[in-house]
Amino acid sequence: MTEVEPLDVGALADVAGPRVRGLLARVEERLLELSSSAGPVLGRYARGTIAAGGKRLRPLLVLIAAGPTEPDADAGLVRAAVAVELVHGATLVHDDVLDAATLRRGQPTVAAAAGRDVALATGDLLFARAFAELSGGGSAAQVKVLSEASSALARGELMQRHDAFDPTVTVERYLARCELKTARLFEAACALGALAANGDGDGDVAALTAFGRSVGLAFQILDDVLDVTGPAERTGKRPGTDLLDGTVTLPFILARERDPQLAALDPRTITTPERAAEICALIAASGALQRSRERALEQVEAAKSRLPDRLDGGRRHALELVADGVVSRYA
Amino acid sequence: MTEVEPLDVGALADVAGPRVRGLLARVEERLLELSSSAGPVLGRYARGTIAAGGKRLRPLLVLIAAGPTEPDADAGLVRAAVAVELVHGATLVHDDVLDAATLRRGQPTVAAAAGRDVALATGDLLFARAFAELSGGGSAAQVKVLSEASSALARGELMQRHDAFDPTVTVERYLARCELKTARLFEAACALGALAANGDGDGDVAALTAFGRSVGLAFQILDDVLDVTGPAERTGKRPGTDLLDGTVTLPFILARERDPQLAALDPRTITTPERAAEICALIAASGALQRSRERALEQVEAAKSRLPDRLDGGRRHALELVADGVVSRYA
Repeated sequence: MTEVEPLDVGALADVAGPRVRGLLARVEERLLELSSSAGPVLGRYARGTIAAGGKRLRPLLVLIAAGPTEPDADAGLVRAAVAVELVHGATLVHDDVLDAATLRRGQPTVAAAAGRDVALATGDLLFARAFAELSGGGSAAQVKVLSEASSALARGELMQRHDAFDPTVTVERYLARCELKTARLFEAACALGALAANGDGDGDVAALTAFGRSVGLAFQILDDVLDVTGPAERTGKRPGTDLLDGTVTLPFILARERDPQLAALDPRTITTPERAAEICALIAASGALQRSRERALEQVEAAKSRLPDRLDGGRRHALELVADGVVSRYA
Repeated sequence: MTEVEPLDVGALADVAGPRVRGLLARVEERLLELSSSAGPVLGRYARGTIAAGGKRLRPLLVLIAAGPTEPDADAGLVRAAVAVELVHGATLVHDDVLDAATLRRGQPTVAAAAGRDVALATGDLLFARAFAELSGGGSAAQVKVLSEASSALARGELMQRHDAFDPTVTVERYLARCELKTARLFEAACALGALAANGDGDGDVAALTAFGRSVGLAFQILDDVLDVTGPAERTGKRPGTDLLDGTVTLPFILARERDPQLAALDPRTITTPERAAEICALIAASGALQRSRERALEQVEAAKSRLPDRLDGGRRHALELVADGVVSRYA
């Protein structure tokens, strides 16, 4: 997954209110603490991964989705937000092993800096820590949500490997993969927040989960657009990385429907960054990027429509801003 | 970690009683079910990993440690036993990626059969499924136990990478690594069983955890002895694999204290199976294997001494047999 410039999380937190901003600061502090207590060797890499930025979009969703809670629920909420970010961090570290990526957030990846072996174990550690963190305050329902999202992430990764370099991947299959690889963790973030606030069985859990799913799909689609358009200095990697990895994404699928030259192309023949850049230009010329952006915007609208009527104004506004934010990057 | 021929789990289960045997059969069934429901691609590999044998030593410890429980606790007990085996399976799959191992339990490893990428994601999936399984019936205390053991496993793996090819590794540091890499999951198995039976705070949890730790250390020490002695047709890999990987183990550490030729050896110069076999012969000739076996037996005695007085006879006998069993392999 491409990691692009942060949404303006500070502004979002402002809309959500001083309480969310305060909780987000506690999340940040805890992530730093966890990475510092991981031992000297690991600490360096864990810190580089989980404490070196990132949009904190998933923790923010946890905190906003929870809405107003009793002060004694705050610790559990922070734990849930930290846990979801740790799972996200674990998948980034493992993704970079799989993709042999050298840069992440403008910094060398763990895989590049310390080798694939250390990266594999570092990802495992972050993953285990996520559940340790959640178990400190979480309910069994929360552990179930996060573990099932984590299963989905791994299944999505396997699906991506299975489909690599296969130009016949359909839009439906692409969306199914996005759901597993990305949307489920957004869903989980919203559900964890809602569960922290309300316990099990509240109607908000289902509605906010559906919201998270659509936001996650929009996020992934736009991510895949950005892989074609760049700019490299902001996405932190060269355009066309997905093409070189054999990852068939929506822009490429839609472009193949529009451009016979692309339809005839064997993805395995894209082996150099220069060739990938040429294909990116063809995808852009086909109009597929515009159509992909529209699909992302449709998901944003779907997300907003899922927000329960009874949400208070500030919470609704903050969630709508998150939804808008994931597709307005570099618009 | 070497996977050697099963202990006679059937015999152990007999000693523990028909109830444990019945629960173990349910664990087996659930592991098969989970690997079959993982989707066609993954299913093949997950099945090859978690449903294709293994000693089921950790599930057995969960079940025996629990002792007599109410029938309505059985489902939670089976879940805990399955979860601990899934974590174990996940680490085996990832270990095989790190070690580039080609054989496991006499079968091709996931890494060898499907590539490192698929193996990485398969391990992640097994790991996530473990927590999903546990959350279905587990308490937050159980999730905490399993997640902290999982953190320890990853930290042990990182420690092993860090110390690779370093001949100055001390016995203490070796034991610290064994504790992280192996003993903590044995501890967790015992603790999960005790927690399933008694809830939190029972004195048995601490005593059985200490028992599990010593059994785990004994297990790992003997595993490391078997890596030197073979026989390959029973351990499923050639002797000296640890030497080739740069993993400095107790037999090598003790042999270096006894044989100046080994003390002067740079482990990085051991690059062929033939050379590794020569070094194994020198280690054997030094008497270090015997001393290592004694250290393992000391751990077994320590384990037995930790068993609470109030354990009923059948349960005590079964646990003692497990402790004896881990060091009597090929004795």
